[in-house]
Formats: sequence, structure tokens, C-alpha cells
Amino acid sequence: MARLKSRVTSFDVAKLAGVSQPAVSRAFTPGASITKEKRDRILAAAKELNYVPNVFASSLSSKRSNMVAVISGNLNNPFYSETLQVFVESIQRTHRQVLAFSVQDGRDSDDVMMQAMRYPIDGLVVTSAQMSSELVKLSEGLGIPVVMFNRRVVGSELSGVQCDNFEGSAVLGRLMAAAGARRILIVRGDPQGSTSIDRVQGFRSAVDGVAGVEIEEVDGESSYSGARNAMIRRFNGPGPRFPDAIFAVNDIMAIGCADALNENFGLKIPDDIMLAGFDGIREGQRAPYSLTTVRQPVERMVAETLELLKAAPEDLKGAEAQRRVIPGDLIPGHTVPGMGRWAR
Amino acid sequence: MARLKSRVTSFDVAKLAGVSQPAVSRAFTPGASITKEKRDRILAAAKELNYVPNVFASSLSSKRSNMVAVISGNLNNPFYSETLQVFVESIQRTHRQVLAFSVQDGRDSDDVMMQAMRYPIDGLVVTSAQMSSELVKLSEGLGIPVVMFNRRVVGSELSGVQCDNFEGSAVLGRLMAAAGARRILIVRGDPQGSTSIDRVQGFRSAVDGVAGVEIEEVDGESSYSGARNAMIRRFNGPGPRFPDAIFAVNDIMAIGCADALNENFGLKIPDDIMLAGFDGIREGQRAPYSLTTVRQPVERMVAETLELLKAAPEDLKGAEAQRRVIPGDLIPGHTVPGMGRWAR
Repeated sequence: MARLKSRVTSFDVAKLAGVSQPAVSRAFTPGASITKEKRDRILAAAKELNYVPNVFASSLSSKRSNMVAVISGNLNNPFYSETLQVFVESIQRTHRQVLAFSVQDGRDSDDVMMQAMRYPIDGLVVTSAQMSSELVKLSEGLGIPVVMFNRRVVGSELSGVQCDNFEGSAVLGRLMAAAGARRILIVRGDPQGSTSIDRVQGFRSAVDGVAGVEIEEVDGESSYSGARNAMIRRFNGPGPRFPDAIFAVNDIMAIGCADALNENFGLKIPDDIMLAGFDGIREGQRAPYSLTTVRQPVERMVAETLELLKAAPEDLKGAEAQRRVIPGDLIPGHTVPGMGRWAR
Repeated sequence: MARLKSRVTSFDVAKLAGVSQPAVSRAFTPGASITKEKRDRILAAAKELNYVPNVFASSLSSKRSNMVAVISGNLNNPFYSETLQVFVESIQRTHRQVLAFSVQDGRDSDDVMMQAMRYPIDGLVVTSAQMSSELVKLSEGLGIPVVMFNRRVVGSELSGVQCDNFEGSAVLGRLMAAAGARRILIVRGDPQGSTSIDRVQGFRSAVDGVAGVEIEEVDGESSYSGARNAMIRRFNGPGPRFPDAIFAVNDIMAIGCADALNENFGLKIPDDIMLAGFDGIREGQRAPYSLTTVRQPVERMVAETLELLKAAPEDLKGAEAQRRVIPGDLIPGHTVPGMGRWAR
């Protein structure tokens, strides 16, 4: 790549173009006030010198790069891609940018987080996996504010924003029990993940005490195919005994369950069996699914996350670490009977 | 934010920690060979000095930042969010990062692209909107390779990678005509967008000559709700005359059409009316939709895009500008009858 080997500054460009340095800055600022003629002259000078207007130019007054690193979970789950979308749009509105990272599974998360911290980022948002204490130390040493998103925060050092997974799932449990469900199958996500654990516990807190309730749990791998295959494995063979209701701890798994129940077993939902999910992804709200679910208030969670990032790193540590737990919104849907009474 | 006002270098950290400078570099490199004790010592020194390991440190040998800017269209269309996912995962595998930008509609695209070029990016991928000649000049002046993704390239200056939208749509047109469709409704996207134009033209090239064919076109705004509302507007009122077939130029609109036809008008697809889309988004492949469509070979398009970015900017200009047009994959689906014969 033919780039200049030593750093050319905006002053060099200004000199060559015969303009002031602020004019050079304006030439590279969208919407700034500058004539086309002047801008063209500056661009020509910049081209000649191979100038790179660097948001990271060695300014003695600020180390801000305007980049926020967002570490997403597996983007195959529409919840993560919809969340990334909200981050990209929200952060862009504040004239900053998202540096996007994706963690495929738990094993590469430390590497990915360390790679993020090699950039002069203004903040780090972690939407998947936990942060090892070594990495927490590194972020503090680098002065990078970190906020955990949709994770229960382990330890007391990090701030976090999450939806009230426990209570939202308890609401779904109460609805299913009120609709008459007694034999209930729970489809779990990552058995080590705080999100799945909280949702299972919240759901069970509502149904475990109800007379006649029997609960069974299976693993759905947090994915469409994981859940669909779990249904096929569980109910294949002569005369499978279907439960009254299935609670999948996220919508993408609920969709996998729905497709298996409809296509593989010819069941109708909710007539033959009830179904609920969690997250409120757009796909689950399309007419064929109309999932009964709890929507994570993603826009508000992102806004609170960006607010927490503004704080100095010192404020985000230890005793000052902030936890914001925001209630989700019940979406009545059509997959649990009797939702008409509950519709808002 | 409490960051040090002047730049601390890795040499300062090495001195304080009593190690070599390469050791400091290894301490911040994931997977590098270094003892835990040495790393902890280096991290402690870094913390004390408020050191920021900067991938953009003034190295005289390279200006590479390892960041690739990706400018997406409206992320509400699952095609753009699925594409962004492939970029994030593919680029991360090459130990680089995606700096993510999103264009809401045509009007802000120039501003967004200029904002991207303020960063010392290694390359720019544009998946929405065209690039003004002024911005092309700016990118050349800055030595930033630019590749247009899924866009027909206007002018001769830029390289681009796209799916064969024209031919893919012609295949869908031939299938619908062979299945007996004569009255056909086309649901367009952005009337100025090259993608929608190419798909409409390709589709029409296959059906316009068929005896008895009548074509009608409506606007679907490239969105789920735009298409759904277009169906409701078009077919409401006494005794609407439904066509034999509907071709929506992208899958998210086809899904909107399907939901309207099913829910609002009680029609069955394909028994009462045929439907086809384009893109091959995951959502359209779920059991309730099983769209007949053409899948854009996104993984291959992204790989070719990254290859083009490696070239020096000079090679990407003018006569050397490269256009790569990759055929899409027909997905037979269940929404156009007789697909059994065509299944691969």
C-alpha cells in the first residue's frame, strides 16, 4: 500500500494549500462551512502529500478516539444482531462509531476482548461471556470503561445493564400455569450462561409451587437448530407424550421448537400445545409465529449502557459499580391461550 | 475522563517494569508467549503510567490500523444485518476489525462516508448508496481502497462485487411463467436503487415476451411493512382481482406480502397465489415461509471484497477497476409450484 512513511500533519497540508489549519480540519468535517473551491484545493494538497486526517492525531488535550468496542455473542441469534444494530445506530447518533467484535463461543472471548483493548477505544461493551479478572485489571490499567450488557455481573467490579430476566420469566410461568399448563418442558440455553440460568429460575419460581406441576428440562444450545433437534430427539419414537407447554428461554429457540412441533409432529400452537419464548425478536413477531414472549427493552438498555460509559473508569469500579435492571415488556402473542385477558 | 495528557510509550512501561520493550508488546498480544508473573508486572506498570497500547503508534513502517469500515444499509432488512455479520466474522478471522456505520436512507450517506474516512482505516466497504465523485476523490487522496458491495458501480472508478441480480431474477421469472403465471405483480424496492432496477429488469426480460402475460408494478419501500401495506392498499375494497403471482425484489418484502396474503386476505401460498423473493435471508427459509428465492452468495462476495481491498488504491482506479459478478443460488422453496422439477 503506497502510504507515506512518516506522518504528515494538517499544518503541512495547510501550508501547501495556502490556507489555515482550521480550514483543513473543516475540509474533512462533514457539513462544515467551507467553499467547494477551497475544499478541492485542500483535497488536492492532501492527495499530493498522502495526508491521513487522523482522529487519533497526537492532541495533548484528549485521548478520545470516538470508537466504542462492542463485543457481540453469536450473531446467528437475531437478538445479538438486532442489539448490534441498535448500538450502531445509537452510537452513530452521538457522532461516534462502533468497532465490532463477535465471539463465536466461550473459548475465544478473552482473546477477542484483549484484541479490542489494543485499540484506543473510549469504552467497551460486552454482550457475551464473562470478563476474566485479568482482563478487568487490564481495562482499569488502560482507563477503558467497561459495561456488561445483558449479563449478570460476576463479582463487584463491573457495571452492567440487563433486562429483568428472572421476573419476566416468572410472568410467563404464571401465565402458563393460569392457562392450565401442568406438564411443562423448559428448553435451556447455555447451562453456564447467567441469562439462561436466571430465566429458568424465574420461570420455575412461578410454577414449582403449583399443585400437579411436573417440569422437565432439555438443552437447546441457544440456537434454532439446537432447539429443533431437541424437539425431534425428545418426541420421536412411538407415542411421544407431549407436555402441555414449552418454555424456550429465548425466541430463536422457541421458533425452532415451533417449526419442529408444526412440521415434524403436526401439532397446532396453542390448540395442541402452548409455547413461550423470551427476547422479543422481530422474527418471532411475524404472523406465522406471533410468539408469546417478553421483549427486552433494547433501546433503553443501550441508552443506559452509553450513559454508564460516560463515567470515568474510577467511578465504574468497586463500590460504585452500577447495576441497572430494566423490566421487559410482556408481548401477549398467540401461543399461550387466554392472553386476551392480559393484553395491554 | 482521567487519562494521561501526554503519550506514554511502551518503552516507559518496559523501563518501569524492568523488562524489554518486546515483552511489553507481547503482554498486550493475545496468545503471545509470556509468563503470568511477567504479564502481571507489566500490567501493573502500565496501570501506574496510564499507558495506552496504541495499534496506531507512530511506527515508521506501517500506517495500517487493521480497521475496515463497513457502511451498511438499513439494518432493519435482515439481508444487511446478515451481511454485516459475515463481514464481522470474516474480517475478524484475518485479525482485523470492522468499524461499523449505518446509513438510514440516501440522504445521510455522504456524511457517513466522510466520517468513516476520518479514521485511519485500511479499507472501506460500501453496501448501500452510491459514492459521490467528490468522495471518490477524497478516498483516492487518502489512499483508502474502496469496494462497492451489492451495488452496480456507477462510472469507472470504483471496484465492486455483486450478485448477478439480473440473471437470478430472470430465472425466477422463467419459473413463474413455466408454472403458468400470467398476471404478475412486481413489488419494487428503492426505485433509484441499482439492485431493485436490475432485479425488475431481469425478471421482466424473462416474462415480457410470454404470450398473455400482464405485468403490474407497485412500490414496497424495501421493507416488511412497506410491502405488507402495499398488499393491503392494492387488494382492499370489493372483490380485488388477485394476480397469479407476486415477485417481491427482496425477501423481507416477500415476507411482508406473505403475511398480508395469509392474514389479511386468507390466501394460501402457492395454492391460491405464487410468491418469490430474492436474497435468501434465514428468516424466509423458516418452515412457515419456505420462500422460493435466489440466495446471494454472501460468504463468497465478502471473500472477494476482502481480496479487492488488499490491492493498492492505484490498482482499484480507472481502467483497473474490477467488477466481480457472482451468480446467486436458486432456492426452490415451496412458494412457486412445480419446484420439485427444479430442485438441485
